[in-house]
Amino acid sequence: MSGERTWTAALLVIGDEILSGRTQDKNVAQVATWLNEQGIRLAEVRIVPDEIARIADSVNALRATHDYLFTTGGIGPTHDDITVDAMAEAFRVPVIVHPDARKILEEYYRDRPGGLTEARLRMARVPEGAELIVNAASGAPGVRMGNVHILAGVPYIAAAMLEALTGKLEGGRPVVSVTVGARAPESDVADLLRETEAANPGVAIGSYPFFRDGRYGANFVIRSEDGELARRTGNQLASRLREAGYDPVDGGI
Amino acid sequence: MSGERTWTAALLVIGDEILSGRTQDKNVAQVATWLNEQGIRLAEVRIVPDEIARIADSVNALRATHDYLFTTGGIGPTHDDITVDAMAEAFRVPVIVHPDARKILEEYYRDRPGGLTEARLRMARVPEGAELIVNAASGAPGVRMGNVHILAGVPYIAAAMLEALTGKLEGGRPVVSVTVGARAPESDVADLLRETEAANPGVAIGSYPFFRDGRYGANFVIRSEDGELARRTGNQLASRLREAGYDPVDGGI
Repeated sequence: MSGERTWTAALLVIGDEILSGRTQDKNVAQVATWLNEQGIRLAEVRIVPDEIARIADSVNALRATHDYLFTTGGIGPTHDDITVDAMAEAFRVPVIVHPDARKILEEYYRDRPGGLTEARLRMARVPEGAELIVNAASGAPGVRMGNVHILAGVPYIAAAMLEALTGKLEGGRPVVSVTVGARAPESDVADLLRETEAANPGVAIGSYPFFRDGRYGANFVIRSEDGELARRTGNQLASRLREAGYDPVDGGI
Repeated sequence: MSGERTWTAALLVIGDEILSGRTQDKNVAQVATWLNEQGIRLAEVRIVPDEIARIADSVNALRATHDYLFTTGGIGPTHDDITVDAMAEAFRVPVIVHPDARKILEEYYRDRPGGLTEARLRMARVPEGAELIVNAASGAPGVRMGNVHILAGVPYIAAAMLEALTGKLEGGRPVVSVTVGARAPESDVADLLRETEAANPGVAIGSYPFFRDGRYGANFVIRSEDGELARRTGNQLASRLREAGYDPVDGGI
């Protein structure tokens, strides 16, 4: 409703291990939460296999349609780490060894067994023109190329890279969410939810049912860029749930 | 390497609650695992907001490029459940109330408080021409429209719908995966991994590093449609790890 623009981001998960079902992804939730704190909306996620052409095509589709693109995975030292090569193909530039990345790795591996091997030096490769993202967790840096931010796949390393980017990206107002829970089957309160949303332009209300301890219930999440409006709508919804005979729980169940 | 075709599927997660970071997705891993048992490869996942146009566009992009498309989320009784409407838009057909779905809901809600309300009847709506997918967990059925399978977002209900589809979709050979773990920094064994993969056409080896109990390690996952080849490659890799001074762990760490 406000005249302010909404900043959006997409996330590309490079992800044979996620697509095989072997590994439970943890990066979508952590990138989403972090982006919201920066005032940027996560508007799309894609998970694609470890194939250069598939990654490059997705990068080009997503970086053109969002303010920012983040990728996770495929930047380690082994043969299946091909994100940098895919990114270079997407941007039609060569892969180079970044001098600062090489220095970081030389320093990091100086006192570690084996030193800076050829395999480890792979982690200094970047698409020509890229900048580095500091990695306080494990040395090998992330990479920024235009509006694309290339992060590690291992969640705690991705978290360290996000930490380094905190406060550095332009964004708008964070979305504020207010949650109200009730031990109500959501189908019993569907009209009430729709009416409350319609009466408050600028909010979106999501309904997330659950079945727990042998009873049905739902959490209703009110989202808005206007925090005051979200809170007011939350109070309205709680009143209406009370009138309908349910006991609303602030913050959700 | 074999002449057999590979069957692929995409998964579309309809997903404001995932994109906001509020909810940790559980469906990607369970759909991926189930698909592999059916001999179908999960080749792409997209997570999009609860917006009809975005859902419809993604449905049309993904159903054309994969043998199967699955969707999760947005088929409940509330105003934010719009998957069926988006699907009808994608297929350019009207939404109708499916007579069998209405019967299932009448039966399910006969002895439940409130009965079959208008909101609950929303769950009998399908795109014209669709068939139902049995839901043994909570009554309201899933929907099949062409090669698109519309599942619930709540994981245990999605699981019940997958159960109903087990053995009913044409597929190829499941991918067999063999895991070998070692307390090796993956950068120390990068050459060995690449050489083992290259020496065994028809396998893909993924390397998944971890840091646990204060030590580095990695699991190496060998995947192939040829189970015997996967196992042989796993044994080769274990031997080479042993020669390199590491203690390989069958099944991973």
